Amino acid sequence: MPNILLSCAGRRHYLAEYFVEAIGGAGRVVGTDMDPTAPALVACDRRRLVPAVAAPDYLERLIEVIAEEEIDMVFSLNDLELELLSRNRDAIEACTGATVYVAPEASMAIGADKWLTYQFALRHGIPTPATFLDVASAREAIGAGRCATPLIVKPRWGSASIGLVRVESADALEAAYQTCRNAVAGSALAVFGLDGAVMIQERIEGSEYGVDILYGRDEAFIGFAAKRKLTMRAGETDKAVTVEPARFRASVERITRNLPHRGNLDCDFLERDEELLLLEINPRFGGGYPFTHMAGANHVAILLADFAGRPLPPYGYGIDRTFAKYDCLTETPAHLA
Amino acid sequence: MPNILLSCAGRRHYLAEYFVEAIGGAGRVVGTDMDPTAPALVACDRRRLVPAVAAPDYLERLIEVIAEEEIDMVFSLNDLELELLSRNRDAIEACTGATVYVAPEASMAIGADKWLTYQFALRHGIPTPATFLDVASAREAIGAGRCATPLIVKPRWGSASIGLVRVESADALEAAYQTCRNAVAGSALAVFGLDGAVMIQERIEGSEYGVDILYGRDEAFIGFAAKRKLTMRAGETDKAVTVEPARFRASVERITRNLPHRGNLDCDFLERDEELLLLEINPRFGGGYPFTHMAGANHVAILLADFAGRPLPPYGYGIDRTFAKYDCLTETPAHLA
Repeated sequence: MPNILLSCAGRRHYLAEYFVEAIGGAGRVVGTDMDPTAPALVACDRRRLVPAVAAPDYLERLIEVIAEEEIDMVFSLNDLELELLSRNRDAIEACTGATVYVAPEASMAIGADKWLTYQFALRHGIPTPATFLDVASAREAIGAGRCATPLIVKPRWGSASIGLVRVESADALEAAYQTCRNAVAGSALAVFGLDGAVMIQERIEGSEYGVDILYGRDEAFIGFAAKRKLTMRAGETDKAVTVEPARFRASVERITRNLPHRGNLDCDFLERDEELLLLEINPRFGGGYPFTHMAGANHVAILLADFAGRPLPPYGYGIDRTFAKYDCLTETPAHLA
Repeated sequence: MPNILLSCAGRRHYLAEYFVEAIGGAGRVVGTDMDPTAPALVACDRRRLVPAVAAPDYLERLIEVIAEEEIDMVFSLNDLELELLSRNRDAIEACTGATVYVAPEASMAIGADKWLTYQFALRHGIPTPATFLDVASAREAIGAGRCATPLIVKPRWGSASIGLVRVESADALEAAYQTCRNAVAGSALAVFGLDGAVMIQERIEGSEYGVDILYGRDEAFIGFAAKRKLTMRAGETDKAVTVEPARFRASVERITRNLPHRGNLDCDFLERDEELLLLEINPRFGGGYPFTHMAGANHVAILLADFAGRPLPPYGYGIDRTFAKYDCLTETPAHLA
């Protein structure tokens, strides 16, 4: 069995548990974080402290850990780190022999930049909410009937809810655009620049769905699971119910045929008039994965079989199963030895 | 052993577990919620669906549950319900024989209204940040050196972060006050009225502490535990480290001597120049209680002993112990039988 690295493990205690359980002691699960009190570290077999992802020696230190712990499979749970690993995927793999489960740079860019996500969906015939980078284009599209109100004005980069402004009609667009732009200028997102940093998008008021798409080591599609989100908390799915995959199949096929990736791809869809519109793509295990896992689609076990070249367990999950997150507590060390 | 009701149990799965463990099968833990997918219900021995707290027949239905389940001790985890139970504490107890662990109405008001919390602290010599209900008073106090900047402008009622505005100097106060007032007017807090609905308070930038104070059935003080909060998430303590109680003792004595209560009282303190300032009082088990519990101050077991008239276990907890919350998942029914 391989040795696993969960990099920037943070609060993803369940993911460490899933790997430890799937490996069954035949390999080890190593967690890293810059904070020794990260609860996911407690669930790992071994834990290593690393600098902040933005530190100049971060990559060097990470490669040291991969080598010293004889890691075979690397997973990152941090968006900033994912971009760093994507840019250096070949170099890390050449120098350590480990497989880095991160998307190629072009796929990473499509996930990180929500304007590129929109362009990707348009190009491949995946339904998606009408989206604009400036007020004039949005107004013109509304006038021509190519964009429905209400609207949402939001930053093009970043996944937090910084600067989100809800707009009921075209009249309020200009002010909302400026409010959002000012919020971006005053936030960490300002590093991306301010030109074209704000998006205007149709606001879809229907149900929200999370879809976990699984890709193997060779970037081939394996399977996917779909859930309707019931409640959110701290930006993550807090309660969800699994749903039939059929309605998502056409969009998932278009995504997987055109967006190479390795490991878990977390996608958000919104429903309008029975149509499912692609909203976001996160190329990693997200806060919705445990719902997929608990319903029976064990992406972790499948990834281990795929890595080892063993026959894959059949892909499937139970439909109409509701799960809810709740808080557990663990004692953590103030320092790591 | 008594039968316990955890009313509006919601996400407090750990609290249900603590009661089930402390009772050890000799009594039963019953949970209620309006939502059958509330994860805490899964940890209870029995679960009952109830209407929304605001429903006209809520109290009647709750009393039915208390009677049918032969409940001895009632705990509520919902602020709206706490006020209802406080107003009707004597009536519920007379008609069911159960003990309702809720504060008397006067104490409840001091917790719910942050202006009354401030007045309570002043009256009893408990350090607290300077607080004002209008811009003119705040400006005058700043000019006279009786109020330090920076400031925070916030709603007087409610515990969510609706309408919070950070202000660096007196110049920005008027605009911030109006922004907060508008946010209150557009929110559920508008039911409290808009006159005096906004507070201006010194903003304390030091460490934040949570203190759990335990009161018995007869409203007498039993003991308390103090924790320094390390991180927050979704408005709750996410990581904390236990600290020595000594620095909080004088304030806790003044609180318990003047604020009658039953059960757990959750208080927030902020540190400025080595001084600990009282910020908020929540007369219930809060999101910080599991840190107290895990460190060894088992308020649940003590409350059961106190209720039964047995000798109380000695009060104490481990100092300098760090705990972190993480997500667990449970399957929940879509409907209750």
